[in-house]
Amino acid sequence: MSIAQAARNRDEDRDIEAAMAALGAEARAAARALAAASAETRRGALRAAAAALRASEAAILEANARDMAAAREKELSGALLDRLALDPGRVEAMAAGVEQVAALEDPVGRLLGEWERPNGLRIRRVSVPIGIIGIIYESRPNVTADAGALCLMSGNAAILRGGSESWHSSRAIAAALRQALVESGLPAGCIQLVPTTDRAAVGILLAMDDVLDLIVPRGGRSLIERVKAESRVPVMAHLDGNCHVYVHAAADPEKARDVTFNAKMRRTGICGAAETLLVDTAMADALPLILEPLFEAGCEVRGDRRVQALDSRVVPAAPADWGTEYLDAIISVGLVDGLDAAIAHVNEHGSHHTDAIVTEDASAADRFMEAVDSGIVLHNASTQFADGGEFGMGAEIGISTGKLHARGPVGVEQLTTYKYKVYGNGQVRP
Amino acid sequence: MSIAQAARNRDEDRDIEAAMAALGAEARAAARALAAASAETRRGALRAAAAALRASEAAILEANARDMAAAREKELSGALLDRLALDPGRVEAMAAGVEQVAALEDPVGRLLGEWERPNGLRIRRVSVPIGIIGIIYESRPNVTADAGALCLMSGNAAILRGGSESWHSSRAIAAALRQALVESGLPAGCIQLVPTTDRAAVGILLAMDDVLDLIVPRGGRSLIERVKAESRVPVMAHLDGNCHVYVHAAADPEKARDVTFNAKMRRTGICGAAETLLVDTAMADALPLILEPLFEAGCEVRGDRRVQALDSRVVPAAPADWGTEYLDAIISVGLVDGLDAAIAHVNEHGSHHTDAIVTEDASAADRFMEAVDSGIVLHNASTQFADGGEFGMGAEIGISTGKLHARGPVGVEQLTTYKYKVYGNGQVRP
Repeated sequence: MSIAQAARNRDEDRDIEAAMAALGAEARAAARALAAASAETRRGALRAAAAALRASEAAILEANARDMAAAREKELSGALLDRLALDPGRVEAMAAGVEQVAALEDPVGRLLGEWERPNGLRIRRVSVPIGIIGIIYESRPNVTADAGALCLMSGNAAILRGGSESWHSSRAIAAALRQALVESGLPAGCIQLVPTTDRAAVGILLAMDDVLDLIVPRGGRSLIERVKAESRVPVMAHLDGNCHVYVHAAADPEKARDVTFNAKMRRTGICGAAETLLVDTAMADALPLILEPLFEAGCEVRGDRRVQALDSRVVPAAPADWGTEYLDAIISVGLVDGLDAAIAHVNEHGSHHTDAIVTEDASAADRFMEAVDSGIVLHNASTQFADGGEFGMGAEIGISTGKLHARGPVGVEQLTTYKYKVYGNGQVRP
Repeated sequence: MSIAQAARNRDEDRDIEAAMAALGAEARAAARALAAASAETRRGALRAAAAALRASEAAILEANARDMAAAREKELSGALLDRLALDPGRVEAMAAGVEQVAALEDPVGRLLGEWERPNGLRIRRVSVPIGIIGIIYESRPNVTADAGALCLMSGNAAILRGGSESWHSSRAIAAALRQALVESGLPAGCIQLVPTTDRAAVGILLAMDDVLDLIVPRGGRSLIERVKAESRVPVMAHLDGNCHVYVHAAADPEKARDVTFNAKMRRTGICGAAETLLVDTAMADALPLILEPLFEAGCEVRGDRRVQALDSRVVPAAPADWGTEYLDAIISVGLVDGLDAAIAHVNEHGSHHTDAIVTEDASAADRFMEAVDSGIVLHNASTQFADGGEFGMGAEIGISTGKLHARGPVGVEQLTTYKYKVYGNGQVRP
């Protein structure tokens, strides 16, 4: 690197640092205004944002066309192009999603508990916004609207950092949201987009523990690993969705077949997709029935020795398969000797995300659901229900496999914390 | 350092690493057993622990005498010697405290929510233990019993790391607890003490994110700063308790005097002690009444220019005073021009711990309690009520100024998280 180049880089770094500091200061002021804003103000801003997204359709699609052209030039994969692409239907879906968030029950100011002490002090536990939330995402531009709306409804200021591929699209979407905020009497700083695609900005964001209360990374494993390793701000995320279906000895074979097929094949690329099927040795006879639809749908089945012996189409599973999240039409299948072995396998190899048992024996289901240490455990239902919408939360910013604060789908309620309000009449402590 | 010395150190480091890994493996097995243990088993173990503490009084006091002799030899301060010292009364208080925890409502298995989806899925949100909790503390040996009991009642395995000054005392207390666990049919690994006073063990503990779900540091600022900076495990703690009393324009002057005096002087060394008094300019006439008992009790009053002008005994406050947690008989006093200025001062200089307003105007109290971003906000009551016992939680492991998971006093309920249990009948996702 030449000296002139190094000096230019230093100047650029200083520019980015200054820009990020300004973003932080604006977010702090916005968070204070937002904490004081009524639910009606927040809902009104969201409805205005939906209208602004619809009114900005042409500008958003034009910006998206620029991103798409650049992505094609870089020969990005078809899957990535699909995640990036917007059309009038997707813009409308974004606007409708924002309206759905506006219609949710207000998560702020809920009375979570109230009691009185013998000395007459009255204590109320009340939900409040977390404060300022950073969201780091990749190519989907609609996350700009989804995450912005969820943060706004829960009274949090958002600092969004979209992927470089969706730069123009995210900017156009954020511009519409910010216009709506200002029209609604809220600071535009409630939803801010990091104003550069420079990767140095992510490092700065992860160190802003004086500004950010929470970081939510949304994307692939490498993004989340980087965020978890580097962040000085608490992180809410899931690294893996290595989900299991366990077919217990007392399972209904057809239910087992249908749940397994849906858990694996409905959509293979989502975190709630099953990656491992465990079948009780007592149910080994049902394996052909369960596996047949998977083979027919073109799913690769990787089995342990006993499963291989049952069907020649089964390929051998390596030890690493039990810990692998394929996100593809591949499933690892093992026979297990009873409920305890199944629980031990799931707790050892799983990722504490979502795991299901299929059985007609309610007490076996209870034991599995008690002992499996995952955010979501299901009885006789597909792991693909691991979703805020399916849980009735309206929308989610992601699914958490961490144990603190929130586990499972993270909706507006999970984006709040609480404070204690204590009412006295001059009480002093003896 | 000689080559032989360096080799010895390497061997010692390897020994510590191996010991910590063994501790982790034992904690994992214990956490699984504990998650399956009934409330009656946990309560029984706690009652047995109280009995074992009483039965071990002689051994505990003998161990404590060794710690005290070493502490006197090192010429440790009187305050530290007092924190370290045990006598029959303090052993009995420890045992009684463990029994009180055993009598608390079971925090595990609480039904936090239950609803049904249109597709017939029934969703239950149920409280579960967090898992494995590391507690790092300093000279008070009773923390061994307190923290161990709170973790056990909430179904969590505990890894305790006491200060080197209290090494023998903590070992004797932990031995009593572990004997009770085994008698009660629970693994001794439910409560483990790091088996070395080597400081390297703390660094290893802070990096054990594959074992620990949470770290709770209890001690002075330097300990908590080190833990926050180094830990790869989520930390629950408070760094500062820079608490405020704001005397509003509509305050009752005598209530203001009594609340302020108690908030500052009841005990000056606890985190809920007030460090700054803000008085509304409209209440400046009441300042002599409010300050007089403080002067009489020997409290140093550091005031801004306007406060200095009112009383010659006031010494000047430097800018740093507004952000200082004295933990001593010193108070900074400022005049503020109205409610909004008071709120802005508290949010800027405070530590989000505990802040109080004194006023007879309920709507002013509401605004203060809404806008001050602290875990605990009080109306007409002393900040020294910031305490799990005073809140009716029975006991606390500390007070959290973080925003995620738990704020304010952290009792057994706050040491749990939740999982979703989803009950179906073969549902698959469309």
